[in-house]
Amino acid sequence: MPQETRTERLATWAANLRYGDIPDEVVQKTKDFFLDTLGCAIAGRHHPAVNAMAQFAVQMGPSNGKSELIDGALKFTTSPAFASLVNGAASHVVEQDDLHNRSIMHPATVIFPAALAVAQDLDSNGEEFITACVVGYEVGCRVGEFLGKSHYELTLKQRFHSTATGGVIGVAAATAHLLKLSAEQTLSAIGTAGTQAAGLWQFLMDATHSKQVHTGKACFDGIFAAYSARDGLLGPADILEGPKAMGVALVPGDTHPEAIDENLGRDFEVSRSSFKWHASCRHTHPSVDALLSLMKKKSVMFDDIESITTRTYQAAVNVLGLSGRGETVHQSKFSMGFVLAIAAKKGHAMITDFTEDDLNDGSLRDFQNRVTMELDSDIDRAFPEKWKGTVIVTCKSGQKFSEEEIERKTRTLATYGGFTDTSKVDLIIKRAWNLEHEKNLQGFVF
Amino acid sequence: MPQETRTERLATWAANLRYGDIPDEVVQKTKDFFLDTLGCAIAGRHHPAVNAMAQFAVQMGPSNGKSELIDGALKFTTSPAFASLVNGAASHVVEQDDLHNRSIMHPATVIFPAALAVAQDLDSNGEEFITACVVGYEVGCRVGEFLGKSHYELTLKQRFHSTATGGVIGVAAATAHLLKLSAEQTLSAIGTAGTQAAGLWQFLMDATHSKQVHTGKACFDGIFAAYSARDGLLGPADILEGPKAMGVALVPGDTHPEAIDENLGRDFEVSRSSFKWHASCRHTHPSVDALLSLMKKKSVMFDDIESITTRTYQAAVNVLGLSGRGETVHQSKFSMGFVLAIAAKKGHAMITDFTEDDLNDGSLRDFQNRVTMELDSDIDRAFPEKWKGTVIVTCKSGQKFSEEEIERKTRTLATYGGFTDTSKVDLIIKRAWNLEHEKNLQGFVF
Repeated sequence: MPQETRTERLATWAANLRYGDIPDEVVQKTKDFFLDTLGCAIAGRHHPAVNAMAQFAVQMGPSNGKSELIDGALKFTTSPAFASLVNGAASHVVEQDDLHNRSIMHPATVIFPAALAVAQDLDSNGEEFITACVVGYEVGCRVGEFLGKSHYELTLKQRFHSTATGGVIGVAAATAHLLKLSAEQTLSAIGTAGTQAAGLWQFLMDATHSKQVHTGKACFDGIFAAYSARDGLLGPADILEGPKAMGVALVPGDTHPEAIDENLGRDFEVSRSSFKWHASCRHTHPSVDALLSLMKKKSVMFDDIESITTRTYQAAVNVLGLSGRGETVHQSKFSMGFVLAIAAKKGHAMITDFTEDDLNDGSLRDFQNRVTMELDSDIDRAFPEKWKGTVIVTCKSGQKFSEEEIERKTRTLATYGGFTDTSKVDLIIKRAWNLEHEKNLQGFVF
Repeated sequence: MPQETRTERLATWAANLRYGDIPDEVVQKTKDFFLDTLGCAIAGRHHPAVNAMAQFAVQMGPSNGKSELIDGALKFTTSPAFASLVNGAASHVVEQDDLHNRSIMHPATVIFPAALAVAQDLDSNGEEFITACVVGYEVGCRVGEFLGKSHYELTLKQRFHSTATGGVIGVAAATAHLLKLSAEQTLSAIGTAGTQAAGLWQFLMDATHSKQVHTGKACFDGIFAAYSARDGLLGPADILEGPKAMGVALVPGDTHPEAIDENLGRDFEVSRSSFKWHASCRHTHPSVDALLSLMKKKSVMFDDIESITTRTYQAAVNVLGLSGRGETVHQSKFSMGFVLAIAAKKGHAMITDFTEDDLNDGSLRDFQNRVTMELDSDIDRAFPEKWKGTVIVTCKSGQKFSEEEIERKTRTLATYGGFTDTSKVDLIIKRAWNLEHEKNLQGFVF
């Protein structure tokens, strides 16, 4: 009998996880991320990419499904594949979703929209939903860690958007869990998800909309993989380590096979993900944190600063070097200089801190021009295990946010997204904190 | 003003092609391939992968669309994205669809199902349909040629299923043409298609169902790209040659940029594609042709043959080396030895020539064991421009099939697929030959 592969072990674990196996703090953090993601989806629902994808859902999908679709213009229910397509796109617009360092992934923006839509379709309860999301995080992030840094970028070139390529597999596993698939069927779902893995960084060059396409399609494709596995479609068994699989075709450098199955059931990837507080690109956060900390400690004011040199890792230089001066509000969040200017002037860099007016603020633009970015080889070697920035300060991504802070962030995002009914937001928050006792997931999106 | 890119030139050409610009012989060959593909779809409609994908369409899609879905069990109309998902899978099951040498692609199995479903949705007429299919072939195959041989395989390892990765872009262009998108919107559609490009060969290792997933999803994803481009979703402009685009991320060796736009409007890729006559893997065909020709010329019979050495290119050795003895009818079509045994004994290797009984035929199995396959470096260097095999005989893939031969192949495939109503097949054939005069494309699938 052939030896069990790492991917088989991961699929078996995913199929067999029960709610009672999950530590309390992992349940709590899953609920935190879920609420955080709802806020992100509401905040992003007016984006043109989201609207175009919602139009596609209207034209190509049914209008009588049970899954709720969030969008700036439409309010309707459809099948889970289409609801998650749109919600997965919406939740990745405002760049406020979580970050899982080791995998260089934003798992929340794919796992929650997909699991929510499927749970609504299947009438799953809160415990089942939480368990499926923990499975989705675990499988998706472990795949991302397996694919590693060179999958994300190599030799100064971005390659794959790992949130999508690892994410589609996490979605498949979460969906398979809600569908109560066997370990064998779950393995098929993982295989079919992996052979669809896609998502390139070319959109960074001209600020086009693929980022939302990648997360929305990761949801759709992962759901396709799991539902069709249930109905008899066979996926390749060893889609990670096989001789013609993802590790060979999508990873130009080293893979990390041990990440697939080491400490399964003891470590939980949910615990390793972190909230995103600043509204700018995640690669600016270590520098923002360092700057704000320094300014506070030394009582330095915005006008006192002559110039700043940030020292960072290669991936940050690559991504942030592309957006130039930042001509739009969106692009400005990818300019290290502009982001530090905002943070220094306003004391934080939240979503409402980046405005059209700021783009024409001479003092911010002057400050921006005095910021230079340098590659630091020590910091680069530590990436992606640690996301460090500037001269001395270590990444604070692991810091603990209180429930109160998450609630405040959610309310800010909901306001930004034009959600005026605050009693509705109150209800969503209350239900999220009580998630494990919820009978079903209906009514979470609108 | 920045210089126009090759991809922009291709998109502009695709948006502006008119029926009157297409040479008569290209129109005729497009009609030939269309009929050929319908036969393939009927023949493949009972496959479990097709049935599972049809179930997904039923559960996730609408039941009141205008596009016809072919399947062994269901007869219903749905939205074009779902109809093409299923029909694109069905037409790639029996390995009888066309081959475009230079791109190592099977364009028909993605272009026709997608364009047909969209044409049915939009009430396009025959001329519009033919024009869109010519656009789809041109764009898809040129992308495949750009990506080149190393995208398909490198250093003894298969990488990407180029029918899917080039195909999704061809589908986007064909759909964009039917939607009458501008050149700029077509470029967006191409960009969004390219960032979704996926499809790995791992399924060859365990005979699972990804091959059909790849073609079906290429249809779905390409349609998504074009419809969402119409509704305002922006795709990256230079998804082929850009610094973070397909050429960088998906091609480990050399790309062929000139293939993107050289001789646009003068050469037509439709003319370069060839019919598949034998029912076995395309990589066996040069050897089958050579063997049958030799046997005829020298009056050699099955029992006269002591042993055979086939000399071929690396990609053939890789693909054919995997299936071992060929335990199933499907796998047996990937065994060089078994395929040559069938051809030698029966005088051809058509779809009805491979049966369960043959798997247990001792004389065929003995013959199989006497066939050895060798890598020929001259033949390998010529690949994929020319697909040569055995000792002396050049690939006959460019040979001309008569209308009569295509009709016979279509009837054989329809019979294999359980299509008992021969008057319906007659009607499909008649309409295909009259395609440019058809008012709409309704009724082609059932």
